[in-house]
Amino acid sequence: MDTLGVSIAHIAPGEVHLALPFSPKFCQQNGYMHAGAIASVADSANGYAAYTLAAPETDVLAVEFKINFMAPAKATAFLACGRVLRAGRTLTVCLAEVFTTGAPERTLIATMLSTIIVRPITA
Amino acid sequence: MDTLGVSIAHIAPGEVHLALPFSPKFCQQNGYMHAGAIASVADSANGYAAYTLAAPETDVLAVEFKINFMAPAKATAFLACGRVLRAGRTLTVCLAEVFTTGAPERTLIATMLSTIIVRPITA
Amino acid sequence: MDTLGVSIAHIAPGEVHLALPFSPKFCQQNGYMHAGAIASVADSANGYAAYTLAAPETDVLAVEFKINFMAPAKATAFLACGRVLRAGRTLTVCLAEVFTTGAPERTLIATMLSTIIVRPITA
Amino acid sequence: MDTLGVSIAHIAPGEVHLALPFSPKFCQQNGYMHAGAIASVADSANGYAAYTLAAPETDVLAVEFKINFMAPAKATAFLACGRVLRAGRTLTVCLAEVFTTGAPERTLIATMLSTIIVRPITA
Repeated sequence: MDTLGVSIAHIAPGEVHLALPFSPKFCQQNGYMHAGAIASVADSANGYAAYTLAAPETDVLAVEFKINFMAPAKATAFLACGRVLRAGRTLTVCLAEVFTTGAPERTLIATMLSTIIVRPITA
Repeated sequence: MDTLGVSIAHIAPGEVHLALPFSPKFCQQNGYMHAGAIASVADSANGYAAYTLAAPETDVLAVEFKINFMAPAKATAFLACGRVLRAGRTLTVCLAEVFTTGAPERTLIATMLSTIIVRPITA
Repeated sequence: MDTLGVSIAHIAPGEVHLALPFSPKFCQQNGYMHAGAIASVADSANGYAAYTLAAPETDVLAVEFKINFMAPAKATAFLACGRVLRAGRTLTVCLAEVFTTGAPERTLIATMLSTIIVRPITA
Repeated sequence: MDTLGVSIAHIAPGEVHLALPFSPKFCQQNGYMHAGAIASVADSANGYAAYTLAAPETDVLAVEFKINFMAPAKATAFLACGRVLRAGRTLTVCLAEVFTTGAPERTLIATMLSTIIVRPITA
């Protein structure tokens, strides 16, 4: 997340928003942010959201995710909003939405549905 | 892909393998490569595989993908093997498998199923 | 949908709710409705939601979907609420949530993220 | 599965094939088998495949799945081939492919990637 320049914009129980600046380093040949960069920040938003509700002495890990790309990732900045849909003892399901920011109108550019496993930390 | 240090290991009609070196810059707190880095290279392998079968004067774009993480991304290098399952005029479906390499035994660490749209290049 | 006993509970531009009664015929060995039955009704809710925004003389078809099952499908009835996240000329993305109904508290039992293609009707 | 007329065509450790006959009862308005029926049989093939490798006194349950529809489900019969990609203590990942059968050439009509949880049976 450091490498992508991501910062935490909002944190609450079951919800985390991450801000991602536009960076030409993570662009595709067409000048849009790479799908992988958008997926990375959405995955992290969901992982952190799950972590806010996880029991003490546990860690969270992505089991799988699915992401739909709905509009070009072209903006000065992006906001990935992750939210817990269901927190279980073993598995947590989260939904992230990624928006453009910095322009007059914000656009939903991607939606991710994730399954996250909560595991005891092993020393 | 430059940023991640990815290189093409194999290319054939409908199939592309990409090599990804381990890099501490793209690691999570636990020392494994970040899920987003693994997803990025699998997405690119599928995108390139789709592109090998696309008509001239077209471009390819990820509509969506789903990835399962099956084992820790801990190895000196990784190979993402993308393959076209069905090439359509508008939509192409690809499957990528990501393996560890460089160790005695290769392990399947992730599987991605992608939908890709093929579009005429607009000048 | 006839076979499953599904009926339309609500319809508006970009949004369709379908009611599904519990039926022992579509149960798994554990007495819960089969994942496939829940997926069928969620898929239909998303398809109909997409159709409410589709241009005249077009048809809609599921390209793919992903569904998370979050709680047991055990209730006297279910409601599948499909909603368009992004309506494109060719592709529409929808999100469906399936709830239990008929009991004091409704529970979210499944979430589906779908990609739907809009195609001209060919006579 | 009874309702759909499904039968087991092949069973081996980590692999199960299910045969599904064409049935007008489970068709869409266009005369193809409903996406939900195809998803149901693929989900069952993956669930049974996971079950062949599960420990004694455990049960399996679909956490989530994602399915791509690649060709029209129009044939006299279908075969859903589920296979374990990775069997874990808690989570098993399976891939199913659904083919048409009964015609001169078999066609891949759908691919499903599933996450399945293995749980101790509670009396």
